[in-house]
Amino acid sequence: MSYRMYDLIRKKRDGGELTDGEIEYFIDGFTNGSIPDYQASALLMAIFYRGMTERETVTLTGCMARSGDTVDLSRFGELSADKHSTGGVGDKTTLIVAPVVAALGGKMAKMSGRGLGHTGGTVDKLESIPGYKTDLSPADFLGQVEKIGVAVIGQSGNLTPADKKLYALRDVTATVDSIPLITSSIMSKKLAAGSHNIVLDVKVGSGAFMKTPEAAEELAREMVKIGKGCGRRVRAVLSNMDVPLGAAVGNSLEVIEAVNILKGADSGDLYEVSVILASQLVSMVRGIAASEAEREVRGAIRSGAAFEKMKEWIASQGGDVRYLDDVSLFPAAAHVKDVLSPSAGFIVSTDAEKIGKASVKLGAGRASKEDTIDHAAGILIRKKTGDRIEVGDAICTLLTNDASALPGAEEEVLSAVGVGEAAPEAGPLIYGIVS
Amino acid sequence: MSYRMYDLIRKKRDGGELTDGEIEYFIDGFTNGSIPDYQASALLMAIFYRGMTERETVTLTGCMARSGDTVDLSRFGELSADKHSTGGVGDKTTLIVAPVVAALGGKMAKMSGRGLGHTGGTVDKLESIPGYKTDLSPADFLGQVEKIGVAVIGQSGNLTPADKKLYALRDVTATVDSIPLITSSIMSKKLAAGSHNIVLDVKVGSGAFMKTPEAAEELAREMVKIGKGCGRRVRAVLSNMDVPLGAAVGNSLEVIEAVNILKGADSGDLYEVSVILASQLVSMVRGIAASEAEREVRGAIRSGAAFEKMKEWIASQGGDVRYLDDVSLFPAAAHVKDVLSPSAGFIVSTDAEKIGKASVKLGAGRASKEDTIDHAAGILIRKKTGDRIEVGDAICTLLTNDASALPGAEEEVLSAVGVGEAAPEAGPLIYGIVS
Repeated sequence: MSYRMYDLIRKKRDGGELTDGEIEYFIDGFTNGSIPDYQASALLMAIFYRGMTERETVTLTGCMARSGDTVDLSRFGELSADKHSTGGVGDKTTLIVAPVVAALGGKMAKMSGRGLGHTGGTVDKLESIPGYKTDLSPADFLGQVEKIGVAVIGQSGNLTPADKKLYALRDVTATVDSIPLITSSIMSKKLAAGSHNIVLDVKVGSGAFMKTPEAAEELAREMVKIGKGCGRRVRAVLSNMDVPLGAAVGNSLEVIEAVNILKGADSGDLYEVSVILASQLVSMVRGIAASEAEREVRGAIRSGAAFEKMKEWIASQGGDVRYLDDVSLFPAAAHVKDVLSPSAGFIVSTDAEKIGKASVKLGAGRASKEDTIDHAAGILIRKKTGDRIEVGDAICTLLTNDASALPGAEEEVLSAVGVGEAAPEAGPLIYGIVS
Repeated sequence: MSYRMYDLIRKKRDGGELTDGEIEYFIDGFTNGSIPDYQASALLMAIFYRGMTERETVTLTGCMARSGDTVDLSRFGELSADKHSTGGVGDKTTLIVAPVVAALGGKMAKMSGRGLGHTGGTVDKLESIPGYKTDLSPADFLGQVEKIGVAVIGQSGNLTPADKKLYALRDVTATVDSIPLITSSIMSKKLAAGSHNIVLDVKVGSGAFMKTPEAAEELAREMVKIGKGCGRRVRAVLSNMDVPLGAAVGNSLEVIEAVNILKGADSGDLYEVSVILASQLVSMVRGIAASEAEREVRGAIRSGAAFEKMKEWIASQGGDVRYLDDVSLFPAAAHVKDVLSPSAGFIVSTDAEKIGKASVKLGAGRASKEDTIDHAAGILIRKKTGDRIEVGDAICTLLTNDASALPGAEEEVLSAVGVGEAAPEAGPLIYGIVS
């Protein structure tokens, strides 16, 4: 069967349904360069308006997943587990969820990204632990998962080149905001990464891509449906990202916060979101009810089993676990400054995106891909939405090795925090679970 | 003011109205290559779905008209006149309208195209007259119009490069069928060609781009509105193109048919459509009622004044007018074959596009830009929709210098003609006039 890209564009433009063969032709041709960008972008815009059926999105996702290397986790049967976050500020849940799930029998063979823009990356955070290697060979990576149940490395190899190329095109043609295109982009990467069980942390709120619970739920339902259509077990957790998760934003600061939770600091938003995410994975991996899994998860943290698993994991990848036993070993930033409240009242909003941008200014993240990271830099949040404050109270503490960054970061943080006379209505931490 | 193409795409995608500055930025950047095709095609698809306001289309048309060379006809004041056809089969009206309008005081400074695909081009037809030069210098072109009121040359110079580039992109991205894009493409060329008065012959039917009167009227209304918005006097005639216009399809055959009308063969569809088109132009040029103009037009043909004007025009461009006085001088095709009807009844349809394609097979047109033309080749239609035929009646006569083309052309012609038991309801020749 021979296809013409023009016919695909016209069919989708007029609301038609592309066949499996047509979608495969498009992804193959676009990836190998035989279909030009200008035809691809016309099709993407038609998809933006016309959408895709479930079958079309499943096929698109599968084709993109198979466009490059794939990770074969079949040796782990139905125990392999993966987690994806749509991106938040202060989101260090992977550092907690991965050892917890491994401690309870799951196989977390995880590839993570680096941070760009206002959200951080798990790989950057782990690299703040001296010695930690993020580039294991495939054999070492799978061997470690086999042996201790968890490994977290940077993305390597040529995974989903179709998605990389397509995303770059969507980014400059205003075709990012399309549910089937977002879904196929995320789920193709998860499919290529090989895990049988996938939990999706779909963030909702001012610091998230999805600003409303309704929009987040629509995306979550679609991702779960498409993931299942591609033969995986998938659940999604809708979690609040109106404010940063936890108190720390910045690489070693976030590792320290995660370690403290695994050492028993078992309360707060970060702890609760991590427990829910881990419980959904354990429930899928073990085939037990989520409530039962949740009891086990809380138990594994309380008993110290999860912290022991974290140390095993970090040590196995070359990290110095003395830093985990004694977090005061992490190098301190040279400049530490409290941001004081100029007014009194209740904090009614904490713009997560602005907090993220302030942390980038301090050196904790990258504004562009070439930037280097100051692992000690970041922000410790002292007062969050709902807290009562007086004039002169410390809202945040800024940490950096670049003193010149402090004024700009302080201004950004102050503009991120809204103060009002009445306590705000608290949004839920978890909006719901889609399965 | 600095613009980003991304912002334009997103604004139009979401139904917004582009500013004059944004449209100018797009056309300038696309024409000079600083805006890539993949962003342009995304915007085109968004325009396909969202349309454009009258102001946006006027601005787009003006920017495209000014993207390259323009013809300055200001010396002719409000007497300059131009005609545009959306493209038909057997459409030789320019050969009749141009001298008629010139004979009645209009200034026809016309640039015409060559034929491609199933529709012919005026320049090719004129070149079947020995000696006729289609490449006058600008000074000679304008001087001739000044002196005798009419000149018809091929398109020269760098007219509307923005439209050329944009059309090529639309053609491969399924974004041709958009009223504002069709309108700006056609009207920008007419604007650049400089005439103050423009009549648009919008074809309707099986052989036309617009298949229904409703679609044609929508396009006509938009083109007239936009042309007026750009400061020109514009009217549109909706004419029937269910069947080829007149009896001849092919270059010298069409010149002969046009000459015969100017010599007094004043009846039939070709004569009537030409009269209406010329009347609308004369009405605008002279500021008189269309009915009065129509009387003058019929009179100028009847009196021979229009034919004398045609000879003056052809002679001025180097053409041998003996061929007009005696059309039997035109070289005859070596092979002439009647296509006989295999059945009896009434002709209920004559697919103009198929007749056009058959004429291309015989050598009268170009399947691709590099093809050469056989000026003697073509089709003479003997029986048209509505005529009663018996088995063995000649429906058409095929003329060619390439005998091998006859079987394929005959098959095409036979498939173009539908025969039924009852006489079909006749569609109108003119569906209406938009002013």
